[in-house]
Amino acid sequence: MSITSEIAAFLDSHPVGTLATVSRAGRPRQSLVYYTRVGDRLLVSTLAQRWKARDVERSGWASLAVRGNEPPYPSATLAGAASIIREGVGPLTALVAQRVMGLDEAPEPQPEEALAAAGRVILAIDVEQVGPVSYIEAA
Amino acid sequence: MSITSEIAAFLDSHPVGTLATVSRAGRPRQSLVYYTRVGDRLLVSTLAQRWKARDVERSGWASLAVRGNEPPYPSATLAGAASIIREGVGPLTALVAQRVMGLDEAPEPQPEEALAAAGRVILAIDVEQVGPVSYIEAA
Repeated sequence: MSITSEIAAFLDSHPVGTLATVSRAGRPRQSLVYYTRVGDRLLVSTLAQRWKARDVERSGWASLAVRGNEPPYPSATLAGAASIIREGVGPLTALVAQRVMGLDEAPEPQPEEALAAAGRVILAIDVEQVGPVSYIEAA
Repeated sequence: MSITSEIAAFLDSHPVGTLATVSRAGRPRQSLVYYTRVGDRLLVSTLAQRWKARDVERSGWASLAVRGNEPPYPSATLAGAASIIREGVGPLTALVAQRVMGLDEAPEPQPEEALAAAGRVILAIDVEQVGPVSYIEAA
């Protein structure tokens, strides 16, 4: 399922979301993350040794829930096949950093070697499921 | 693990959170919910036929992630054994309704028969795990 323009606009104006993965024991694991959207793909910057990355490598799936900051709290949950990107992460990491810093343009990417040495990876979700969605109005 | 007073104060001032359960297929399922806290127990009002209730009845576990509304987005994730309460849900449902409506006191409970006829249940999480926690200061 593709992301509608209304949901895209909502995501693009809300840079944080709650990522959920499933642990080896079959339990949900949640953490707050900054993310960015590129088409129907959601990108999160993390470290290879973090649980979220290990859960995705094992399970191949993740969910991201995003909400607005005021009542009635508009929200959207998106889920899909997820993967860990280890190569060429500089430009993607810069796109996420742009959201963290609230910049109009992405900062200059860091060198790939430095990112690799730090264990920096991109967790990518290719959105297949959209919903539940609440209080996001059709344009 | 018990909830510290700092995290309790944070939860008590933030009435919405993202609930995560695990589906029969082993995938995370998230939805935005109003909740309330009673000691180390988190209460969510839902309907028996909703996925979140069915996931909890099958798996016995849930997680709730709560975040603040402004950067740097303080947040806490809490998880534990979860159960569905079907009897005597009136007063508990009223406690959650108090949070939804932002009232100083809980409204008069609805009749149990009416709540039962509507399929209204309480999803309760007995918090065993606290974390990740970010930007919630020690008092």
